[in-house]
Amino acid sequence: MSTDQRRQTGVVRLWRHLRQLTFIASLACAGLPASARAQEVGPITLERFGSFHVGGRMVEISGQPIREYMPTVGGTLNRIDPNGSYMVGAMYAQYMIPSPQRGTAPLMLWHGAYLTGVTYETTPDGREGWEHFFLRRGWATYVTDAVERGRSGWAMVPEIFREPVFLPLQNPWERFRIGDGPGSFARKTTAPGAQFPTDQDSYLNFMRQVVPRFLSTDEDVLAGYAALLERVGPSVVIAHSQGAALAWQLAQRRPELFRAMVLVEPAGTGDMAQAGRLKDIPQVFVYGDNMDPRWSSIRSNVRRFAAAIRETGGQVDEIDLPARGALGNTHMVMMDHNGNVVAKLLQEWLTEHGFWR
Amino acid sequence: MSTDQRRQTGVVRLWRHLRQLTFIASLACAGLPASARAQEVGPITLERFGSFHVGGRMVEISGQPIREYMPTVGGTLNRIDPNGSYMVGAMYAQYMIPSPQRGTAPLMLWHGAYLTGVTYETTPDGREGWEHFFLRRGWATYVTDAVERGRSGWAMVPEIFREPVFLPLQNPWERFRIGDGPGSFARKTTAPGAQFPTDQDSYLNFMRQVVPRFLSTDEDVLAGYAALLERVGPSVVIAHSQGAALAWQLAQRRPELFRAMVLVEPAGTGDMAQAGRLKDIPQVFVYGDNMDPRWSSIRSNVRRFAAAIRETGGQVDEIDLPARGALGNTHMVMMDHNGNVVAKLLQEWLTEHGFWR
Repeated sequence: MSTDQRRQTGVVRLWRHLRQLTFIASLACAGLPASARAQEVGPITLERFGSFHVGGRMVEISGQPIREYMPTVGGTLNRIDPNGSYMVGAMYAQYMIPSPQRGTAPLMLWHGAYLTGVTYETTPDGREGWEHFFLRRGWATYVTDAVERGRSGWAMVPEIFREPVFLPLQNPWERFRIGDGPGSFARKTTAPGAQFPTDQDSYLNFMRQVVPRFLSTDEDVLAGYAALLERVGPSVVIAHSQGAALAWQLAQRRPELFRAMVLVEPAGTGDMAQAGRLKDIPQVFVYGDNMDPRWSSIRSNVRRFAAAIRETGGQVDEIDLPARGALGNTHMVMMDHNGNVVAKLLQEWLTEHGFWR
Repeated sequence: MSTDQRRQTGVVRLWRHLRQLTFIASLACAGLPASARAQEVGPITLERFGSFHVGGRMVEISGQPIREYMPTVGGTLNRIDPNGSYMVGAMYAQYMIPSPQRGTAPLMLWHGAYLTGVTYETTPDGREGWEHFFLRRGWATYVTDAVERGRSGWAMVPEIFREPVFLPLQNPWERFRIGDGPGSFARKTTAPGAQFPTDQDSYLNFMRQVVPRFLSTDEDVLAGYAALLERVGPSVVIAHSQGAALAWQLAQRRPELFRAMVLVEPAGTGDMAQAGRLKDIPQVFVYGDNMDPRWSSIRSNVRRFAAAIRETGGQVDEIDLPARGALGNTHMVMMDHNGNVVAKLLQEWLTEHGFWR
């Protein structure tokens, strides 16, 4: 045995030792699918993370009175002249880039009306949310607040934005199919087998996430999403409720910004007359259980819209959750106890369509 | 030379090779203390991350008209009865828990007026912010939005919250010592050596972060911070501007919730008559450069407040940035080009006082 061979033997032994350590570490992850072992549970390694604002426009305000106020104990009198230029309609995004990446495009997580990006973060009862789910599978995730909401900020009312709308406690319970219809909040009754965490703490945590929306800002919101996709590049967009309708509307204007669309309980559609604009974007939509007349009517509109896209040669799939064995899903699918069962169906769809490797 | 010796030689060679690689990698981190090298650059491993809301109170609203609106194309008519119970005054927090942890308490990052937790995230010109800085040093970080702002949401005006105030473009430029006083925004002139990124893109990115504040919500804001610290436990609190004044005010009510206080450009103080309530909390405050009459006056108030705490036996340090060689710092220290120079001084203070190991 030459000196060189012997040196190599030493290296090989160290290598085997390291492999053994790795094997021991892997036992902690036993039972998980091989593809997901590394980050399914336990620590998450981020290549990088951060946030930014995009978009917005300048508005001039004049003729407003000057304000003076004492901002805080130990401060000095503040004098605010509210006249001048405002940056309004900008949009906030927070990104987490995992290592290694397995998604073939950035993954957008767009929320619905009266909500913010918190929709996709930790659930109201403290479980990991869909942001965690997709990050752990190697997707570069972008959680955003629509223009006018959350960290995107809002603008003077009624000078710039008009008509904020607020939700009282009973409204989502009865309208998001958590309860069983009108009066159910007062009765404290739930839809059959409702998967939303309906204990009082969890429901109040959900209501703590609820923020005002405005009835006059759709064009600003759409411009914000367009600026986001222009900056990040063509993306896979998961969009919920109002966000899904807005995603379809933006995709009809700017189809080149969308790689795929995953529409979760869409609250509306795009423009039926322009369905063909969506024919080159793979799409899937999904609804939960316990449909009431209002949601059945919306789903009928969405199914007609999907049929119109298909007629132009497009591809729109539907995942009917109860038909796939997922029962009791409310409008807030990602917060439901079985939210990850649904996320896995979406992940499978994305994998089958070549967006994950 | 025996076989065993030769094997050992191979291992030693591999070891030296690894050490050499490590040395090369370490050049990128030259000048940092050895203890901080591991995560100074490159990927970050999180033990866990997530978000939650805390606090809030119930408000009853009655006598408001019912609203009907068409929320989106393809939706159905929405009928919102705004009367009922509202959850208002809740507060949003996002946490990142690194692995390994080196801080001896959770680290709070509280923002100032007209801003949100974004203050501590990526800077307006795209550099890592103080959240990254402290996370990379093993601190469990909590970035929060004060009640009424960002993802904490706001409440009906004027029924619940009163008097939102908005900031036009010129205001922070002239009031945060980015420019050189009144008229400097129109002149496009900056304070001498201003460290804030003053190119147009960066300043507009900063203004995209600006949100309304309210003049009637201090008690709600204080209650939110109290609920946060009750949930997370006694913490090291880094607080900026208005947030620093609020932190002092809360600490006077609930000193047991604070392990240490780092007050960055405080915009006010606590109650001078109750300075003794703060005597058991180690504190440091820091101001930047180019003080104008208004900020000089506020700093004088803060110095008198600090003196009053010291007279009761407390410990309050001051870091005078220009005197420590850090020149040109604006009010938005954490966004300044030399923001990490300041963060290092704060990290040193925390280490010297036993809050980091």
